[in-house]
Amino acid sequence: MSKQQISKYPVPALTDVPEDVRDMMLAVQEKAGFIPNVFLTLAHRPEEFRAFFAYHDALMLRESGLSKAEREMIVVATSGLNHCQYCVVAHGAILRIYAKNPQIADQLAVHYSRADISDRQKAMLDFAVKLARTPEAISESDHAALRDHGFDDEDIWDIGAITAFFGLSNRMALLINMRPNDEFYLMGRLPPQPEKKRPGG
Amino acid sequence: MSKQQISKYPVPALTDVPEDVRDMMLAVQEKAGFIPNVFLTLAHRPEEFRAFFAYHDALMLRESGLSKAEREMIVVATSGLNHCQYCVVAHGAILRIYAKNPQIADQLAVHYSRADISDRQKAMLDFAVKLARTPEAISESDHAALRDHGFDDEDIWDIGAITAFFGLSNRMALLINMRPNDEFYLMGRLPPQPEKKRPGG
Amino acid sequence: MSKQQISKYPVPALTDVPEDVRDMMLAVQEKAGFIPNVFLTLAHRPEEFRAFFAYHDALMLRESGLSKAEREMIVVATSGLNHCQYCVVAHGAILRIYAKNPQIADQLAVHYSRADISDRQKAMLDFAVKLARTPEAISESDHAALRDHGFDDEDIWDIGAITAFFGLSNRMALLINMRPNDEFYLMGRLPPQPEKKRPGG
Amino acid sequence: MSKQQISKYPVPALTDVPEDVRDMMLAVQEKAGFIPNVFLTLAHRPEEFRAFFAYHDALMLRESGLSKAEREMIVVATSGLNHCQYCVVAHGAILRIYAKNPQIADQLAVHYSRADISDRQKAMLDFAVKLARTPEAISESDHAALRDHGFDDEDIWDIGAITAFFGLSNRMALLINMRPNDEFYLMGRLPPQPEKKRPGG
Amino acid sequence: MSKQQISKYPVPALTDVPEDVRDMMLAVQEKAGFIPNVFLTLAHRPEEFRAFFAYHDALMLRESGLSKAEREMIVVATSGLNHCQYCVVAHGAILRIYAKNPQIADQLAVHYSRADISDRQKAMLDFAVKLARTPEAISESDHAALRDHGFDDEDIWDIGAITAFFGLSNRMALLINMRPNDEFYLMGRLPPQPEKKRPGG
Amino acid sequence: MSKQQISKYPVPALTDVPEDVRDMMLAVQEKAGFIPNVFLTLAHRPEEFRAFFAYHDALMLRESGLSKAEREMIVVATSGLNHCQYCVVAHGAILRIYAKNPQIADQLAVHYSRADISDRQKAMLDFAVKLARTPEAISESDHAALRDHGFDDEDIWDIGAITAFFGLSNRMALLINMRPNDEFYLMGRLPPQPEKKRPGG
Repeated sequence: MSKQQISKYPVPALTDVPEDVRDMMLAVQEKAGFIPNVFLTLAHRPEEFRAFFAYHDALMLRESGLSKAEREMIVVATSGLNHCQYCVVAHGAILRIYAKNPQIADQLAVHYSRADISDRQKAMLDFAVKLARTPEAISESDHAALRDHGFDDEDIWDIGAITAFFGLSNRMALLINMRPNDEFYLMGRLPPQPEKKRPGG
Repeated sequence: MSKQQISKYPVPALTDVPEDVRDMMLAVQEKAGFIPNVFLTLAHRPEEFRAFFAYHDALMLRESGLSKAEREMIVVATSGLNHCQYCVVAHGAILRIYAKNPQIADQLAVHYSRADISDRQKAMLDFAVKLARTPEAISESDHAALRDHGFDDEDIWDIGAITAFFGLSNRMALLINMRPNDEFYLMGRLPPQPEKKRPGG
Repeated sequence: MSKQQISKYPVPALTDVPEDVRDMMLAVQEKAGFIPNVFLTLAHRPEEFRAFFAYHDALMLRESGLSKAEREMIVVATSGLNHCQYCVVAHGAILRIYAKNPQIADQLAVHYSRADISDRQKAMLDFAVKLARTPEAISESDHAALRDHGFDDEDIWDIGAITAFFGLSNRMALLINMRPNDEFYLMGRLPPQPEKKRPGG
Repeated sequence: MSKQQISKYPVPALTDVPEDVRDMMLAVQEKAGFIPNVFLTLAHRPEEFRAFFAYHDALMLRESGLSKAEREMIVVATSGLNHCQYCVVAHGAILRIYAKNPQIADQLAVHYSRADISDRQKAMLDFAVKLARTPEAISESDHAALRDHGFDDEDIWDIGAITAFFGLSNRMALLINMRPNDEFYLMGRLPPQPEKKRPGG
Repeated sequence: MSKQQISKYPVPALTDVPEDVRDMMLAVQEKAGFIPNVFLTLAHRPEEFRAFFAYHDALMLRESGLSKAEREMIVVATSGLNHCQYCVVAHGAILRIYAKNPQIADQLAVHYSRADISDRQKAMLDFAVKLARTPEAISESDHAALRDHGFDDEDIWDIGAITAFFGLSNRMALLINMRPNDEFYLMGRLPPQPEKKRPGG
Repeated sequence: MSKQQISKYPVPALTDVPEDVRDMMLAVQEKAGFIPNVFLTLAHRPEEFRAFFAYHDALMLRESGLSKAEREMIVVATSGLNHCQYCVVAHGAILRIYAKNPQIADQLAVHYSRADISDRQKAMLDFAVKLARTPEAISESDHAALRDHGFDDEDIWDIGAITAFFGLSNRMALLINMRPNDEFYLMGRLPPQPEKKRPGG
């Protein structure tokens, strides 16, 4: 499977991208063990690449009333309804790891209505899915429903902005036929291995 | 996760179901290593249970121009669009095994448009998805498109009948909140292990 | 009109179908005065034929909190929204007879919202239509709404399973262009005739 | 059934409506044997009544490349998709009579795709249904498709204007819960009776 | 822009239309300063023209619990959702003038949910939009919601009938590619000019 | 109108935003004569603000096979279908200016199908609208249709990425009830004034 094209567009060699872009790629490779294809494929346009990841990090790394797992739940649930293979597979992997739950991503990708989530998380996804699919229908009563579940206004901005950003991401991935790395499919599905004693450890 | 309810309805004990129903359950357990929850939950009504599995086997086990993997592709692609957790997870597992492909089910569950399938299979799923979601729109030109890809009339009946049967199955699963067995999530995702020498083997 | 094809697929002669299939046909002919085309056309595949009618009878003939007329209401209302000519015409006839009401089927075929039905029946069809068209949207609150109208859990299974089964039936009919018998169009529309004295009676 | 309300709004007595309105009612009664409820219920507002029937007659009585049966086909097919009980039942009756076909209305009310109509009529209804449901999608290529079937520009205006007028009519009927007269349900379903010799005739 | 066709159909010269039709055109020209294209283009069929404007005037000029601006709000909001260029542009102009508000039409054309309108007007448009887009879904509870906002039954008829009439109008405009006059685009956008002293005034 | 809230969220004073954010605001004020509310309202979160405008500028200011007017056409047409008041009003103004056409934005906001645009631009918007509303349906044949109209692969990326970015922008605006500045409503609607001699000029 690894021979498949990862984009309809040219994918630049690491040696051909601007230094700051390459540094970002090497940093993620250091951490994840491989470079996710969203980095490789969007590097075709460095300026948009920088804005994309700056936006991503501003939303996904900030302090928030939402846990990291909850933010990934939004990504997987809305990307499923937007039918984006890349985001479901890649962020499904990340969600499994953050949530320490090997089933949650597959459940949310099908539909959040039967997933193993709390009522609060269900309310969060009601809002996200509505904004993703019929944005004009979001009204004050939807904000109020979230506040009833303990989300504050900044949390609601987070829910909405993550939904909005991954709506962009889904469309970019579908535009260029972005292909998820093979590595994502299995990540977070196996129970953590007992750490082996390293030689000399 | 194994403590979760597998149905909104009572699940009979194996000792309480009619003998023929129990025999079917034991046969599948023998083969799969566990009893899929669709057997346990539908056994609440033995008559419907018998008809359900008779229908299933008539479609899924018969000689056909469709391979077993292709039949499961129909199940996974239409169940994804019908948002049925049980069928996507359980038949996703079966598809991975038949197709010997650990990625194909996750791809089809999101949408068949970007899955690693042949043009012939894409045509097959065009038809299945149309029948699943806007059945009145199926016309002679859709049949003709399948014949152009080498499907004969019996193959087309298979495609349509599998779609129709799993439309029923999806609705039953959503009606009773049927929960997939934990085992399905990982099946077919790992490369086959080299068989270990058994002690005394 | 009687010269029209009743299926896109070959329709076997009575002499060519397995004996048990033929017996079922003769039994219905004895009772109804003619063989409904669903028997003739599905006999093309005897195994699926047997499962189909076993499923049908398990749902439509069992003891239930739903009257036989109410079960046919579900069939007509959901088949109307699924645009299935065969099921609307054939089950519309059966509904007129069970309900002793010559108007109810035409009303439900258009939409259940203006039909002459009770509030309890309207609730029943709210659930059935939701399961038929947006099955993932069915939630515990929909079950609760039915219980508020006096339906118990087994009645709800009946409502859901009949909807699911006729969703299959609708798709099979649309797949093969199943044509309703001419007889159905007028059945149950005329007031019952005073029984004439038979010669020698 | 005759005791049911025929409108959510007051229905004026014949003695209370303006003379020209009453004259129209008596004329239709003379011809049809009863006053269709659309006359009785819309008479609540005489000015709108006059405009409504003037528009109706301008479209339905004019010389046209469309036969009267074809015009009623448009009414029944689009009213079915708009879920208007009054128009499907009342115009279904008229269509059966014009087409001398007891089945055509029930078929078109479910969906025009499987009705016993010519390819030319199918093209006519493709256009009508598109204009009824997604009017912005009508484009020059849809006009061209009709011209390919021998419709001229005035015929196309007729198809479109009848669709548009009955879209209004459907919404008025649904607004006021207009109920069809009992008489419509059976009209045109029975073969014409051989005229009996009247006593002294 | 003034050279663009205003209809797919022939537009009759003023000298060629029946006298009463011409008189209506000259009257509106006298009042508005130009003849709106809906008059010129529909004059292709004088009988329908007369019925159309009789209907229009019966609804838009009658005494009503709805102000003239509110009636135009219904036209603009529903025509926006029906994607009718002519009605949005022409009635948007009229609305700006009646409401003495240069922004309201552009807001309603996009969606009424964020427009500067009262809660009562929002309830009015909830009803109108539902009737325009999913007419079968209108039920007694929708009527009740309007009565809660102080609308009486005649006001509700007005809301529904205006929606229904402009659904017709939208479809006619889309059918014939009716083009709005250039004049409409700017009407009501500029603050009223201080009246200049006329020579000799 | 100027007293209306421009966001559901706090709008920071210019003195309270980071210097680089303030500099961007002052620069746009210098150029446009006022600060568009998208700057004021998104400044509530400076990091996201920076990423948003970096992305915007990367797409809207770059060299491209699409003219600036064409890029704004994409924004207005897709924002209309997404029902985003802010983007339709603000980018409608910008489009009128770039296209030197006072009508084009109002036309595109209603629907691109009847707008005064070239066939090439219509193809561009076919693609954009499909990606905006049913992104999974975009396939190689849609890319091919654009290439047939002379767009190269980089132009197609521009069309897709602008659509994706404004899908994000629409959702942010609907999330926070972003209100367009009063100034936008009239911009580009009046013919350019002959420059008056300034006093002492």
